[in-house]
Amino acid sequence: MDPTDAETACFEAGIKFGSLYHQFAGTPVSPESADSLARAMEEAIENQPHCESVSVDVLTDELDAELAESAADYTELTGRFLDVEMVIEYEGEEVRTRMDMQDGYPLMRVEDVRSDD
Amino acid sequence: MDPTDAETACFEAGIKFGSLYHQFAGTPVSPESADSLARAMEEAIENQPHCESVSVDVLTDELDAELAESAADYTELTGRFLDVEMVIEYEGEEVRTRMDMQDGYPLMRVEDVRSDD
Amino acid sequence: MDPTDAETACFEAGIKFGSLYHQFAGTPVSPESADSLARAMEEAIENQPHCESVSVDVLTDELDAELAESAADYTELTGRFLDVEMVIEYEGEEVRTRMDMQDGYPLMRVEDVRSDD
Amino acid sequence: MDPTDAETACFEAGIKFGSLYHQFAGTPVSPESADSLARAMEEAIENQPHCESVSVDVLTDELDAELAESAADYTELTGRFLDVEMVIEYEGEEVRTRMDMQDGYPLMRVEDVRSDD
Repeated sequence: MDPTDAETACFEAGIKFGSLYHQFAGTPVSPESADSLARAMEEAIENQPHCESVSVDVLTDELDAELAESAADYTELTGRFLDVEMVIEYEGEEVRTRMDMQDGYPLMRVEDVRSDD
Repeated sequence: MDPTDAETACFEAGIKFGSLYHQFAGTPVSPESADSLARAMEEAIENQPHCESVSVDVLTDELDAELAESAADYTELTGRFLDVEMVIEYEGEEVRTRMDMQDGYPLMRVEDVRSDD
Repeated sequence: MDPTDAETACFEAGIKFGSLYHQFAGTPVSPESADSLARAMEEAIENQPHCESVSVDVLTDELDAELAESAADYTELTGRFLDVEMVIEYEGEEVRTRMDMQDGYPLMRVEDVRSDD
Repeated sequence: MDPTDAETACFEAGIKFGSLYHQFAGTPVSPESADSLARAMEEAIENQPHCESVSVDVLTDELDAELAESAADYTELTGRFLDVEMVIEYEGEEVRTRMDMQDGYPLMRVEDVRSDD
């Protein structure tokens, strides 16, 4: 069957998460450059269709902890350093999604689907 | 509200499309290297959870046409050169998705959602 | 033979250019999000070893021209929209490099190699 | 001063390494998909100018070790899983380069620069 509007809204939400993660994973990042990277991620993905808002937090405490055990002063961006929230709207359906660490993995998930009606 | 299983299946399908596109867009590609890139894209994304199958066609006719007008013998992978089909399964829900060019844009879309029941 | 310090400095400069280009090519970009992306690119690559400075200009005039012919309000970052300068220092050797469009291609090149001595 | 041919050859070698790493870092990879990814990386980068040969080994022993400690059956490609050799030729200068793990970091380096003369 054709997808419902709510299913399409969830598909669109997934696209944004996959895009955000695989475009920016691997970027060299330090506590000092975390903010500019977070802003660029937000504004880049907000360009995509049906993307109402994106909020990216690059976890500088986690970066500090990793770098304290390292000879380097930067590392590569990966899910361990990210907390992301997104709101997608499609044909009156609003989808709220989140990615953060759960049991050692960055888990992308739909938190809420609701209709404007 | 919490998402239905079908909505989560569509969210998972979107993640795979965003991942595939933004991981591999920009890769140097020529008609000769199109096949190995297509295989790697399929096998990489099939690693992801709930991803039943991925079929990637890198459009060598389109590559040939672009390179015929160019001094270069390779270009960067972008949606214009891709036709992708994916099947996602989640909790008994099967989602069929596709990306190909529609009106000059690479359009990712859900073609079918069905339940095993 | 082992590389000279100037040769190693040039190798390091090349790494930064390849990194910058292939990390960020494909990012969704619009005239409005161009600035945050440029800042993130600069700060991300400046994290890398021996990288003294990075200056990225995302060419909003070129973006405007592309979008004027399009139904979309954003596009994907590619070399056509970039003007980049970098300075690398390695063991007293300073290498100045640049990427901009030349004859329709984004050309990365070494403009100057000099020793501190 | 303008770069020598050997310096330009080293710059070109660096571009290829940065490209290879930042294009493919973050790709979902398992022991089963390691081979197709390695072939795609080789053939993609060999498209680039002056790139004589690329040899990529995705270290399945390292992948197995990582996955043995994990609930997942795939991970993201990063330097820890790579051993790469490249040969660049530019105007009669041949540069041999390598990336592998040294002291816990993926180290990219020039191993040999020689002239055809």
